[in-house]
Amino acid sequence: MRTVKLDLDHAPYQILIDRGLLTQVDLILPLLPQPRVAIVTNETVAPLYLDPLRSALAARGVQVQAIVLPDGEVFKTWETLNLIFDGLLAARCERKTTLIALGGGVIGDMTGFAAAVYQRGVPFIQIPTTLLAQVDSSVGGKTAINHPLGKNMIGAFYQPRLVLADLDTLDTLPAREFSAGMAEVIKYGLIDDLFFFEWLEANIDRMMARDTGTLAWAIERCCQNKARIVAGDEKEQGQRALLNLGHTFGHAIESGLGYGAWLHGEAVAAGMMLAAVASEALGYLDAAAIERIRALLTRAGLPVVAPALGVERYLELMAQDKKVDAGTIKFILMRQLGQSYIGELDYATLTRTLQRGCA
Amino acid sequence: MRTVKLDLDHAPYQILIDRGLLTQVDLILPLLPQPRVAIVTNETVAPLYLDPLRSALAARGVQVQAIVLPDGEVFKTWETLNLIFDGLLAARCERKTTLIALGGGVIGDMTGFAAAVYQRGVPFIQIPTTLLAQVDSSVGGKTAINHPLGKNMIGAFYQPRLVLADLDTLDTLPAREFSAGMAEVIKYGLIDDLFFFEWLEANIDRMMARDTGTLAWAIERCCQNKARIVAGDEKEQGQRALLNLGHTFGHAIESGLGYGAWLHGEAVAAGMMLAAVASEALGYLDAAAIERIRALLTRAGLPVVAPALGVERYLELMAQDKKVDAGTIKFILMRQLGQSYIGELDYATLTRTLQRGCA
Ligand SMILES: NC(=O)c1ccc[n+]([C@@H]2O[C@H](COP(=O)([O-])OP(=O)(O)OC[C@H]3O[C@@H](n4cnc5c(N)ncnc54)[C@H](O)[C@@H]3O)[C@@H](O)[C@H]2O)c1
Ligand SMILES: NC(=O)c1ccc[n+]([C@@H]2O[C@H](COP(=O)([O-])OP(=O)(O)OC[C@H]3O[C@@H](n4cnc5c(N)ncnc54)[C@H](O)[C@@H]3O)[C@@H](O)[C@H]2O)c1
Ligand SMILES: [Zn+2]
Ligand SMILES: [Zn+2]
Repeated sequence: MRTVKLDLDHAPYQILIDRGLLTQVDLILPLLPQPRVAIVTNETVAPLYLDPLRSALAARGVQVQAIVLPDGEVFKTWETLNLIFDGLLAARCERKTTLIALGGGVIGDMTGFAAAVYQRGVPFIQIPTTLLAQVDSSVGGKTAINHPLGKNMIGAFYQPRLVLADLDTLDTLPAREFSAGMAEVIKYGLIDDLFFFEWLEANIDRMMARDTGTLAWAIERCCQNKARIVAGDEKEQGQRALLNLGHTFGHAIESGLGYGAWLHGEAVAAGMMLAAVASEALGYLDAAAIERIRALLTRAGLPVVAPALGVERYLELMAQDKKVDAGTIKFILMRQLGQSYIGELDYATLTRTLQRGCA
Repeated sequence: MRTVKLDLDHAPYQILIDRGLLTQVDLILPLLPQPRVAIVTNETVAPLYLDPLRSALAARGVQVQAIVLPDGEVFKTWETLNLIFDGLLAARCERKTTLIALGGGVIGDMTGFAAAVYQRGVPFIQIPTTLLAQVDSSVGGKTAINHPLGKNMIGAFYQPRLVLADLDTLDTLPAREFSAGMAEVIKYGLIDDLFFFEWLEANIDRMMARDTGTLAWAIERCCQNKARIVAGDEKEQGQRALLNLGHTFGHAIESGLGYGAWLHGEAVAAGMMLAAVASEALGYLDAAAIERIRALLTRAGLPVVAPALGVERYLELMAQDKKVDAGTIKFILMRQLGQSYIGELDYATLTRTLQRGCA
């Protein structure tokens, strides 16, 4: 079992990475303030993984409430969140009842936010079941729901007490979802880990085949990288912004096409390509580096060309994004392969990038 | 100007108490991370106090967004909260935009919660305009909205950067609302401040006449008391529960009659009488003490007899309340006049109290 330790917000916790964790409830039991949990999951994940977890907990005397939500980013809304509150209140769940998120990033973000605000805060455990959730959304304590005017606009910083990344759950993940997770994996290489980027270049086939050892090491490396970046900057004032590599463009793509058309990771992949193209325009990246990024993303099954929404629409969508400070938009750009920085793009470069980098 | 200093959640701030504070924007300006605020208020308070505040800020170059909500506890809901998010997003308010709550406890609780979760947290200033908000809801960092299945069920602990208690605003407060605030004022005497209780007995007429000096001293005393109790126990694990004197009964009254029938403070007043009656049944308070409590509440214009909802209904409503831990309900009871404690009531005593203490 691989372990990554985090200590954020004065609330230390561990990410455990292995096969078979779902039913190892000995890992969970010592953390429960009362023998009572509410498992939040969705209609896709429940038939696959709810029963094993529920039975394992029940066998140890834990009272389990299951809350099964509809599946999809379009349901990452207040209305769906309210289904969690309805379930918790109808079952009279108390301040010591622990919420367990069993699912991908959507379930994790919503359950985490529900835990942050239900009765002003209840304990929370993450069991991420997508690659994206295991390497990204379950690490760092960001929780949120969407608002019609913007993604993740309403949320909280709230840390789980434990994260169980069970590699077994990835076996059932559709290929497209796995690839989407790979975008975030590759992102860590591009942010500040050239060694990892090159390791990925060498191991991409084993990775895509979901080889156990390869997966476990990659997930651990991603979590360590994210933990390191987040630890110095929990409230996203500075360096944490590096994690948004590809995301300012990516969010514009997601929201411009309508949530759900492209997966988050797909939009981030195309967004990272735009960031690379912009970095080249600024004189940093060379054509060979761009080519390596494009090749790795492509082998991971990801899009490398952003959709043609039109320059004006992109600008409008990005101005709406929350990484806006006094009117200027920050971009994460690349100084060289495996070294990113927080910068700005002048209007001309941004326009040229969008013209060149889109379909 | 009277000042109460708080240092909660590693976020020190001050409560300032005086006349004329609303337009003294020099107090606010140094705290703004950018010259931009969103004032959240309601349809009753806006015509009275929005313009002076807005003009004073605008005159100093601050960009002001006003968000005017419908008035009432029934609007302390997600739907209304969403009007705040709609307003903030439509105006593209950023992470550094400061939210100012201008109104009573409903506006304060909702605006505080909005500030806690808008983009995962933005700065927040309280300008409480009811007595209740000045002595209670603006102190301690609790924010919340109601859920159909329970009051204040969804919320956050979130501290403001400043609280301005402008006594001028109390001049327009309806008598019934002023009395409701007096319930919380008297509560502080009953919790652990016999000196204050006796001071109130001596000064109740001046207080009800809203005499400036009397008001200012009483508000300062209440804020000090609440700050002291909260400081040792920010997340409401232990002693902070004393602040709920009268509230377990009170919430049952409010929710049993339907929110809005009785004011919060009125329900708390009747709830404190029930707590006193229960304490007598346990052999603590004597009849003379009960009589003094009843007399003071009555002179403050408050109800001292709880509505006859029926014992069963009370029990059901209280079981729903969130101060429930593993099935037992905690009550704040009185050891003697001016000294409360966290205790439990056996079923027989509780039943007898409800039979004796209700209309
Ligand atoms: N909090 C953060 O720091 C953070 C970081 C990145 C992304 N996110 C959020 O994460 C979300 C995206 O997460 P995601 O990519 O996991 O999407 P997702 O949660 O929608 O999961 C993708 C799909 O896979 C299904 N699924 C989940 N686990 C499965 C399994 N084991 N087998 C088969 N199907 C499975 C889901 O039901 C869903 O249909 C977005 O809402 C994004 O905003 C949050
Ligand atoms: N956060 C906390 O710690 C805490 C503590 C106690 C109560 N509360 C909450 O506070 C709320 C009750 O607060 P409240 O009693 O201030 O109620 P409120 O906010 O509804 O105000 C009472 C009425 O007075 C009006 N009003 C406000 N200021 C006025 C003024 N200066 N002149 C004329 N009218 C004015 C309001 O518009 C409203 O109609 C409840 O929702 C309760 O849950 C919170
Ligand atoms: Zn992402
Ligand atoms: Zn109260």
